[in-house]
Amino acid sequence: MSQLTYPKGYKCIVANLGIKDTHDDFIAIISDVPAAVSAVYTRSRFAGASVELSRAVKQYARGVLVIARNANVATGSMGLANAQEVREGIAKAVDVASNELIIASTGVIGRQYPMDNIRAFLADVPPLETADFECCAAAIMTTDTKSKIVSHKVGKATVLGIAKGVGMIEPNMATLLAFFFTDALISPEELDTIFRRVVDKTFNALSIDTDTSTSDSAAIFANGLAGKVDLKVFEDALYEVALSLVHKIATDGEGASKLLEVKVSGARNVAQAKRVAKVIINSPLVKTAVHGADPNWGRVAMAIGKCEEDLDITPERTRIFFGEIEAYPQQAGEEQLQQLRTYLTGNEIAISIHLNIGSGAFTAYGCDLSERYIKINADYTT
Amino acid sequence: MSQLTYPKGYKCIVANLGIKDTHDDFIAIISDVPAAVSAVYTRSRFAGASVELSRAVKQYARGVLVIARNANVATGSMGLANAQEVREGIAKAVDVASNELIIASTGVIGRQYPMDNIRAFLADVPPLETADFECCAAAIMTTDTKSKIVSHKVGKATVLGIAKGVGMIEPNMATLLAFFFTDALISPEELDTIFRRVVDKTFNALSIDTDTSTSDSAAIFANGLAGKVDLKVFEDALYEVALSLVHKIATDGEGASKLLEVKVSGARNVAQAKRVAKVIINSPLVKTAVHGADPNWGRVAMAIGKCEEDLDITPERTRIFFGEIEAYPQQAGEEQLQQLRTYLTGNEIAISIHLNIGSGAFTAYGCDLSERYIKINADYTT
Repeated sequence: MSQLTYPKGYKCIVANLGIKDTHDDFIAIISDVPAAVSAVYTRSRFAGASVELSRAVKQYARGVLVIARNANVATGSMGLANAQEVREGIAKAVDVASNELIIASTGVIGRQYPMDNIRAFLADVPPLETADFECCAAAIMTTDTKSKIVSHKVGKATVLGIAKGVGMIEPNMATLLAFFFTDALISPEELDTIFRRVVDKTFNALSIDTDTSTSDSAAIFANGLAGKVDLKVFEDALYEVALSLVHKIATDGEGASKLLEVKVSGARNVAQAKRVAKVIINSPLVKTAVHGADPNWGRVAMAIGKCEEDLDITPERTRIFFGEIEAYPQQAGEEQLQQLRTYLTGNEIAISIHLNIGSGAFTAYGCDLSERYIKINADYTT
Repeated sequence: MSQLTYPKGYKCIVANLGIKDTHDDFIAIISDVPAAVSAVYTRSRFAGASVELSRAVKQYARGVLVIARNANVATGSMGLANAQEVREGIAKAVDVASNELIIASTGVIGRQYPMDNIRAFLADVPPLETADFECCAAAIMTTDTKSKIVSHKVGKATVLGIAKGVGMIEPNMATLLAFFFTDALISPEELDTIFRRVVDKTFNALSIDTDTSTSDSAAIFANGLAGKVDLKVFEDALYEVALSLVHKIATDGEGASKLLEVKVSGARNVAQAKRVAKVIINSPLVKTAVHGADPNWGRVAMAIGKCEEDLDITPERTRIFFGEIEAYPQQAGEEQLQQLRTYLTGNEIAISIHLNIGSGAFTAYGCDLSERYIKINADYTT
């Protein structure tokens, strides 16, 4: 684990609002100066009040505030008014405009905020302190067992990311919550282009359980205090930080015991490669076979078969590998099955598919499916 | 449970070919006379050799043969040749043309048939006997815990169905295996129209685990020996038989403890209603909440939200019921949550959604998701 470095010019507030218990459940991370911003959100038709408010924040912003343990989703006009009230209260306390703040909320759906607690807090907001990003990463956890934080140097600048999320994860625009902070100087337009490209290859390649959160939000802030950077180097660093967070999320997936990577190559195009990678990473029968270290590669063939519209995918052309071991079309003898079994006992499983059609490639990230996922989710609200 | 009645003019062979153990694993059901036939198959890109051969059977046929415990899928040209050899051997033994027989195969993917056993059987096929459909329904089981058979009178005629399937079930054309036999006199064209209409509302409304089998096949045979029937009465009877089989499959879903019905109404059209019903019945977080009798209706809202392209679906218009109890938008008090909890302890759970857009409606069938599903599937082949 590499040492964390922090970008310059960010301050924070971390607090307990008493949403559920005495665990910290509130953070605000504020840049000293206006920062270029780019953000992507859930495409859910039941997107929460926070997402609705945050969509309007464009080009430049001052920071983000997060409430954990309550998603403020499916809460109607009262939920929206409450989100506005929280954002305005914090904006006033830290002396920025309300529409310069992204707001995010995560937790149980369908409950109103405990506004008595929150109003008491807003009446007496503690002062900003030098940002303690590790503390922030811990405060936004819900059922996460580990906090998720990564940083990377880019010349004199730094890019740092924090994320949360372990279930209800097949983001279409972003994972549950992921925020990036850098002191690199980048224009909002350049930042947006780079951010969307990186999110597409990282958070949008991640699936824990096919369920898409109503609160998915990912944003990046660039306050420029460390000056200009090489954009290519910056994009590579951001990609490394985002991919590392994706690995952490998949490894901490609800009930997960194994990281699963599905690499598809030889597809007609990237879209087809992504479709095939996702259908495998989402198959409960593939995920349970990986969990049980069962070399049942036929389930991978089954999952590929679900791409019914892809008439150019054929059993004759397709090749399936577990790690470096070819599972199909080479018919498995007992020795090879034993190799597959041994490979599947590892903690990181790579399934590779070669479609032999074109040169499109995509890698998806996920985890196995265990009894513990069921246990965790059969009894969450109560 | 109503008494079974059998249609006239069908004979069968039930046998053990030693595919896996000493459990019966082979059936042939043959009509005394040519029967009108209609069939639908999996749309999987990895469809098995049996599906490939059977697709060519049209208009009239003499019957079906099924091999259980081996799917003969992803087995290449040798698998196809083996399927042809089996079908020809049986056709010769029962004195019909090979292309008058539908062949189906179900079980592990990626293994060749044990042809030594099968050739020994083909060299000495036992004679046809009066059809024992209950015995046939039991012989085609794989991980099913109960055999699935239903019959219904239609005037002087009878329609009877048998099915198997408990996992890898989100059929796009049919469930794993379902075969219907009637002595009603119906033209192939009328039979096909009625059959496809019924399958669409029954088997295509069923999902256990989102995984689509490579062997899905459903067919109906009408040998005409009981004469003409009222087509409307026939369709109603066939629908009742098919729906009853769907209930049996969902109730016996791998690890299932509850039957789940999701009824969507008020949709823009039937296609939208089906999309919403399927996204709910397939959500692991909804299924685990039902399993845990957890009144977490927010997950139903989340699942609906996944229909990202349906811009006319809004939180403002949508209503969610568990049984008769409104869960959303009415905010849940503790008393209502207790009612929901009590309702969810039942064995049959109905979730109803009203979208308040138009008059499209659809009902989907499935089951809860339990630890036992994981146990069963983490260790299937070995």
